[in-house]
Amino acid sequence: MKAIGKTKKGPGIEVFDIAEPEVGPEDVLVRVRASAICGTDLHYYHWDGYAERHNPGFPRVLGHEFSGDVVKVGDNVKTLKVGDRIAGETHIPCKVCYLCNTGRMHICKNMKIFGVDTLYGSFAPYTVLPEITAVKIPDSITYEEGALLEPFGVALHAICEANIGPGDVVVITGCGPIGLFAQQLAKISGASMVISTDTKEYRLNLSKRIGVDETINVLNVDPVSRVRELTDGKGADVVIELSGANVAVKQALDMAALNGKVVFVGTTQKPTEIDTTNQILYKELKVSGITGRIMFDTWYRSIKLVQNKIVDLTQVMTHKFALDDAPKAFELLDKGEAGKVLFIP
Amino acid sequence: MKAIGKTKKGPGIEVFDIAEPEVGPEDVLVRVRASAICGTDLHYYHWDGYAERHNPGFPRVLGHEFSGDVVKVGDNVKTLKVGDRIAGETHIPCKVCYLCNTGRMHICKNMKIFGVDTLYGSFAPYTVLPEITAVKIPDSITYEEGALLEPFGVALHAICEANIGPGDVVVITGCGPIGLFAQQLAKISGASMVISTDTKEYRLNLSKRIGVDETINVLNVDPVSRVRELTDGKGADVVIELSGANVAVKQALDMAALNGKVVFVGTTQKPTEIDTTNQILYKELKVSGITGRIMFDTWYRSIKLVQNKIVDLTQVMTHKFALDDAPKAFELLDKGEAGKVLFIP
Amino acid sequence: MKAIGKTKKGPGIEVFDIAEPEVGPEDVLVRVRASAICGTDLHYYHWDGYAERHNPGFPRVLGHEFSGDVVKVGDNVKTLKVGDRIAGETHIPCKVCYLCNTGRMHICKNMKIFGVDTLYGSFAPYTVLPEITAVKIPDSITYEEGALLEPFGVALHAICEANIGPGDVVVITGCGPIGLFAQQLAKISGASMVISTDTKEYRLNLSKRIGVDETINVLNVDPVSRVRELTDGKGADVVIELSGANVAVKQALDMAALNGKVVFVGTTQKPTEIDTTNQILYKELKVSGITGRIMFDTWYRSIKLVQNKIVDLTQVMTHKFALDDAPKAFELLDKGEAGKVLFIP
Amino acid sequence: MKAIGKTKKGPGIEVFDIAEPEVGPEDVLVRVRASAICGTDLHYYHWDGYAERHNPGFPRVLGHEFSGDVVKVGDNVKTLKVGDRIAGETHIPCKVCYLCNTGRMHICKNMKIFGVDTLYGSFAPYTVLPEITAVKIPDSITYEEGALLEPFGVALHAICEANIGPGDVVVITGCGPIGLFAQQLAKISGASMVISTDTKEYRLNLSKRIGVDETINVLNVDPVSRVRELTDGKGADVVIELSGANVAVKQALDMAALNGKVVFVGTTQKPTEIDTTNQILYKELKVSGITGRIMFDTWYRSIKLVQNKIVDLTQVMTHKFALDDAPKAFELLDKGEAGKVLFIP
Repeated sequence: MKAIGKTKKGPGIEVFDIAEPEVGPEDVLVRVRASAICGTDLHYYHWDGYAERHNPGFPRVLGHEFSGDVVKVGDNVKTLKVGDRIAGETHIPCKVCYLCNTGRMHICKNMKIFGVDTLYGSFAPYTVLPEITAVKIPDSITYEEGALLEPFGVALHAICEANIGPGDVVVITGCGPIGLFAQQLAKISGASMVISTDTKEYRLNLSKRIGVDETINVLNVDPVSRVRELTDGKGADVVIELSGANVAVKQALDMAALNGKVVFVGTTQKPTEIDTTNQILYKELKVSGITGRIMFDTWYRSIKLVQNKIVDLTQVMTHKFALDDAPKAFELLDKGEAGKVLFIP
Repeated sequence: MKAIGKTKKGPGIEVFDIAEPEVGPEDVLVRVRASAICGTDLHYYHWDGYAERHNPGFPRVLGHEFSGDVVKVGDNVKTLKVGDRIAGETHIPCKVCYLCNTGRMHICKNMKIFGVDTLYGSFAPYTVLPEITAVKIPDSITYEEGALLEPFGVALHAICEANIGPGDVVVITGCGPIGLFAQQLAKISGASMVISTDTKEYRLNLSKRIGVDETINVLNVDPVSRVRELTDGKGADVVIELSGANVAVKQALDMAALNGKVVFVGTTQKPTEIDTTNQILYKELKVSGITGRIMFDTWYRSIKLVQNKIVDLTQVMTHKFALDDAPKAFELLDKGEAGKVLFIP
Repeated sequence: MKAIGKTKKGPGIEVFDIAEPEVGPEDVLVRVRASAICGTDLHYYHWDGYAERHNPGFPRVLGHEFSGDVVKVGDNVKTLKVGDRIAGETHIPCKVCYLCNTGRMHICKNMKIFGVDTLYGSFAPYTVLPEITAVKIPDSITYEEGALLEPFGVALHAICEANIGPGDVVVITGCGPIGLFAQQLAKISGASMVISTDTKEYRLNLSKRIGVDETINVLNVDPVSRVRELTDGKGADVVIELSGANVAVKQALDMAALNGKVVFVGTTQKPTEIDTTNQILYKELKVSGITGRIMFDTWYRSIKLVQNKIVDLTQVMTHKFALDDAPKAFELLDKGEAGKVLFIP
Repeated sequence: MKAIGKTKKGPGIEVFDIAEPEVGPEDVLVRVRASAICGTDLHYYHWDGYAERHNPGFPRVLGHEFSGDVVKVGDNVKTLKVGDRIAGETHIPCKVCYLCNTGRMHICKNMKIFGVDTLYGSFAPYTVLPEITAVKIPDSITYEEGALLEPFGVALHAICEANIGPGDVVVITGCGPIGLFAQQLAKISGASMVISTDTKEYRLNLSKRIGVDETINVLNVDPVSRVRELTDGKGADVVIELSGANVAVKQALDMAALNGKVVFVGTTQKPTEIDTTNQILYKELKVSGITGRIMFDTWYRSIKLVQNKIVDLTQVMTHKFALDDAPKAFELLDKGEAGKVLFIP
């Protein structure tokens, strides 16, 4: 079958042929119907340190945000059958460690990441994944929406962690797809004002389209001052950091109100100098970070919101491509001139 | 001045003349601009047990949900000045007890209720209240909205206590004004579905106008079965009981999902038979109750939501009257054929 | 093998011979080393409504609080091996329902109870249970302690739910074994005062031995007044109801301080008349209930506390018997003249 | 009267004569009975940047941790009378700002610190403070204990924030007096193991005397490795940072278990390089900071614990001096060869 991925180290993206995957006794084989590019996939496009550290071998198919139909099930599979429509959970837990045993599979200490630590990802007509990570979706959710549930779930997890109260002012730093999803969620979670920041006008425009109350281009305006201005000097009750920029990490702490909450979601490449005493302690901030989706609380919540049309995930999708167009699609995303980009294999 | 209230025990409502109130050193005199009728006022209209228990003497002016302008301040008043626009907080705390000293003034153990335990309420051109209970409102909030902040605050307090998570199914039993406000708030607080119940079609229609996803007339449909039907048998994640009916208290517990939350807000007249083991314990429910508004967290949140037009309080207001029309206004409310009813003194 | 249980309906307890259990592919066979009698076992001794409702057939072996050694493992068992020392978790979850999928296996909607819904319990030299419910215990925990981890876990779960803050006054109504365990835990969880109640002097003496600060025999003293007296009229910050008596349910609500917490753990046989408005709503109580042990958070916590000798479970154990002495053991417990009673098969 | 403090800038500590303070209408005059030296006082002893920034003028009396008797009350004082025994709360709130109005007076945005921003501190026979900061203590609490309630309250506030669950492993980095108090509290708050760190054997010995389970001298042993070793590689469930050392801030994050909690209490002098992605985000840590005492929740809790002898504050006190011995007392503390040092004026 045709697939998008890598056959060797180094920058770039390739379209190549590869055998269909085998199905283990606890796995399901899935006909992929839609699959989105994630920022993580760009690590392989640039072949950076992350790509070096997470490389199970070659040839490897990239892609991990996807939906499709179950076409074959392993011998021990109990909860899925051929024909079920599913979306993929990326975190593959060991199911037996301390964390898996206490409701925190998404931070399993033996975790493998689908499409990152496995040879078969979802940028291909077929892929294979363990039963536990194939989440059934109802017919009322389209394949395109299904492929977006994985990144949407990160945003929802962050919103749960932020625990927005009625009337809270919420800032979301960064207007990548997860930032945009978080903005959608903040708008329907009781916030009295949702503010977004980015460096790219293209993305700030997507943010405006979603309906945030205020967008800040941090290249032109100091976001800390602007947030204080908009809040009678108090600062934001909740800040969700989704840019992964070190300066934004600092600003997130500074723009938070006394006793406010800051949730880190965007991954930085380097440490940040933080004055814990003045930025956290004296302000009595609550600072935390989240990764992935709570398995499976986040999924149940996401499906209910999409199914009942409380949020429209396709607002964040800007492009769809065939597998052959992989180079064009990656280039577009890399320039920051896209929201969510989907392949339809 | 002309006022609405009581000059003697017994049912009915009177319009009469009374001297303007005196202003103590810690009080402010307020020119009332709008004042709404509360269910509590109906206790005096019917002169029931509640009225007997909360009676500071005669003549007494009723009314406690109001807004207006400060026209005079007592000698020790520090935070308000003539000309300030304010809304009234009904709970008058002692400021020195254990609860006042730990951020819980709204359940002060020496609490007096304005318009209930005091001779001067707000159904008159002028009233007097302690500085601490006169909450400044911004110019962008109208007097009518200001008069509704007190009951809206009860709904907001209940929503805070319920702590709705993204995707939760929320049932609000009862479509009186506080129920309607709670429905407005649930709709913007992340719920994937908001369901309301009542016995009166008039009120269910107000609820529909607000945009709830499903209304149930409990005279025709069993609400517990209906809620289970709408939730794949799971029940509601959050139930807020606002009817004060004993049967609704039971149903609230029964329609809640395993591990769900039930918040009691509506006051019942009699005890309810509750099977704590099967209705609470084995279901691991979280049950709580709230009264009044958190002073002053609720107020800050309410003002931000109204000011930023996240909620429109006037959707719940259905009638406005002059003071002279008191008998007509009370009769209307008593029949349940009104949302919020305001006097413009 | 010899076993304690029932070969027919009706009151009484029998010692009889039964074949050793078969081991399914996901099960482990355990050589039982110690097994305690639970209040649940008394339902079968009296053969009451509970016994009728939970009866998988005859002959059946009773007992579900136990420890032992793994002597055989099913083909699909992955985390246990012959020789492992284990304690039994009683709740057998389906592992695939909504609740199992969201970290709440202990309230699985398809749950079966070991020793209640299964034919083989633990009052025998051998028993069989699913891998997931056999919890490995370290060598530093004795078999006797291991057999007590299941009821201790209920107490620990209740203490987690109560979330005692430093200085809180805690009342535990009921001095059965779980009550006594909860008292041990309250004493080491920051309480400034732990108060216990019961109707039996024997049990109140066990409670005193554990070191609670005040014991109340509710036959002689009104516990609500006494608790108010001991707390300057405020009431208890936390009440954990473990007696299962309807009057204690009411008193638990009444003795709780404004904004206090009440956790129901003891199961009542009938509903209780509760004035939700005055007992919960105006007091802004937090009321909840718990059942079983959080799987497996409670187990990790319990093991650490026992292993590090923070609590001594054997303080609650008063008698040990051979299987043949079953009638004597049950009679003793039924009279309330025992703490925890163990069989050593 | 004789007092300890400063008459001019620069290092050192002076004993000098000063007039007794005047009593404003909302103040109380107190005969100081015991007053402890705080780390904050050492800023003035060394005359560092902090001293420069917080200097209301000269001559100034230092000291802010104290107890005494009310000997005179201002005209508007309502809750205190001559003869009342009190302990001093150091944070003087404005009582009218957003934070004071929402139960967070201890982080009032207009806050003044007694003995830091005021001319009269407590190292003298008499001092003056606003009514709201004079906390009544019961007769069962000695003056010495009363003088220790202020720093003990910081530890208790930190413990409340950390919200230790039963069985948690708790590390407290730093064995200064607040660290030692926090260790006492951790030991009675459900921890299965309490570990302390410091660089000074003298202080680690005080920590051992208090009964912590493990002390680590970070000069000899890597605390992160040692904590992992003691916890089967998991790390600590709770870390409370009380040393104020930058390296300890980093280590606190590293020694915390996945999903653990870190509370910053010790104030650092410089920023710390933090890898928020790997140290917070992927670990899903909860990080927060606290300052002062929650007014007045912390005080109620502290008084109950001391009064009921759950903790013995005098275990942390190592020396008592007359005012004249100030130079000796400060020198001792500065060398780190003391626990809590008291003056008896």
